[in-house]
Amino acid sequence: MTTRVVALDIGGTAIKAALLDRDLRVLDTRRAATLHEAPGVTSADALAGQVEGLVADLAGGSKPAAIGVVVPGIVHRGVAHYAANFGWREVPFGAILADRTGVPVAFDHDVRAGGLAEARLGAARGCANVAFMPVGTGIAVAMMMDGRLVVGGGYAGEIGHVDVGHGVTCACGNTGCVETVGSAAAIARRYTERTGRQVAGSREVLTAADGGDRDAAVVVDEAIDALAKGLRVLVTLVAPEVVVVGGGLFAAGEALAAPVRERLDGLLRFQRRPEVRLAELGEMASCLGAGLLAWEAAG
Amino acid sequence: MTTRVVALDIGGTAIKAALLDRDLRVLDTRRAATLHEAPGVTSADALAGQVEGLVADLAGGSKPAAIGVVVPGIVHRGVAHYAANFGWREVPFGAILADRTGVPVAFDHDVRAGGLAEARLGAARGCANVAFMPVGTGIAVAMMMDGRLVVGGGYAGEIGHVDVGHGVTCACGNTGCVETVGSAAAIARRYTERTGRQVAGSREVLTAADGGDRDAAVVVDEAIDALAKGLRVLVTLVAPEVVVVGGGLFAAGEALAAPVRERLDGLLRFQRRPEVRLAELGEMASCLGAGLLAWEAAG
Repeated sequence: MTTRVVALDIGGTAIKAALLDRDLRVLDTRRAATLHEAPGVTSADALAGQVEGLVADLAGGSKPAAIGVVVPGIVHRGVAHYAANFGWREVPFGAILADRTGVPVAFDHDVRAGGLAEARLGAARGCANVAFMPVGTGIAVAMMMDGRLVVGGGYAGEIGHVDVGHGVTCACGNTGCVETVGSAAAIARRYTERTGRQVAGSREVLTAADGGDRDAAVVVDEAIDALAKGLRVLVTLVAPEVVVVGGGLFAAGEALAAPVRERLDGLLRFQRRPEVRLAELGEMASCLGAGLLAWEAAG
Repeated sequence: MTTRVVALDIGGTAIKAALLDRDLRVLDTRRAATLHEAPGVTSADALAGQVEGLVADLAGGSKPAAIGVVVPGIVHRGVAHYAANFGWREVPFGAILADRTGVPVAFDHDVRAGGLAEARLGAARGCANVAFMPVGTGIAVAMMMDGRLVVGGGYAGEIGHVDVGHGVTCACGNTGCVETVGSAAAIARRYTERTGRQVAGSREVLTAADGGDRDAAVVVDEAIDALAKGLRVLVTLVAPEVVVVGGGLFAAGEALAAPVRERLDGLLRFQRRPEVRLAELGEMASCLGAGLLAWEAAG
């Protein structure tokens, strides 16, 4: 099994796991509900146990060359400084899992891993200066500059909390945050607030806007504005050549990417204009990125 | 002279040149007015000739190990993609100067060079994640993440053009740009606009504010607000551990750094809080950075 790694993308509700070869081909996959001992609480040992089970299942009893695990939060060099889904602060999960399995472990951040995958294998392959912005419940960005991820000790990339001036209060305590208006969750929530109608998610609001629903159109337009203004800040400060947009919201494809691209273009002056491309790796981006990091850990 | 480099910081009006040893000790300096053939126009050959003269003067006739030259604009890997002071677009000044002198040349950006110097020799020495924000006529930022400068093909770091919501129109065509309200030039200009009184520069406005001048106090307060909000964006996106503030405006020292630090602190929520420090290298920062780059070019 030294020619295989196991990669796991562990979210708050679900785990995507994959067995990958050297070329990052997906040989087998598993899905599981993320273990919780209580709402928002999972001990490192319990999660390591669940990971170990999935690894054994995928690797067929023999040991893989390495394991890659990625989670949301503030994660850097094997340590989760903060991971809200599990109630973790300063948990060295990389070392815990490596001790338990006897296999090299890469433990890192889901969005940065996804950005790495899109930059190496996906929509931005071959580019040295890339930003990857997945938009789902929240919004973050992975920045690769001159081929290296900008990490900031795990704190970099919080584009969802850049103030773009819309004035709506965010859970973080500030106003104007990109994600309060621009995230998939915000689109659904704001449509319901405006109309009293429940929706299954942002996709339903996008469809309604296309069908001529004025309330939906306003909510979607404000989201496009927040996303474009957030990207303007990113472009002004770090100047990526390619911006890859992805996540649940951009499952809508060009129907949403096109107006974001156009709005951003209208906001830029002297700045370098990036290409805005749709993500190519879909919901497997972070899992594949965990695989890339696992191969680095395998040496 | 293989134990010496010559470093030149070439601005729109003046050149600072220094002879430096391996430890970046300043052995000798020269100052000169930047050569102009017409307002805003200097040919690459003419400027190379002026540089050659200063190098010969400093190096006493023998050749230095390398020459480092830094200028404002969009500069990357020896090429000025845009340099307003000279009317340049796509000028490979590094190669032109190297051909002319027969000496290795580093040609780069003044603010990034200044950031490199503050990170290696100045206020942030020993830190891996550093931002350096000099505030003068304009405002830009040099970002060093995990020990490497974020370059963005020469386009990164335009914090002066991040929209912080004050609504004032900028020469770039957008509104709310940090530098329209937060730069030293803006403080002087806005005070004159408000009162009709001419001032020699921002220092005079800072002094007036201290002395109880209400108009001066408002202008300075709005500048502090714009600077703090610009830094909030920087901290949210790239998360430096140390922010070094410098340039003409921060010649006022702690009197200005303290309120900027305090205002920024009040704006941050979950973000990593950086230390805000005063620059240590003063107006020699970019010249010393050019020296560091020259030694890299010397190999």
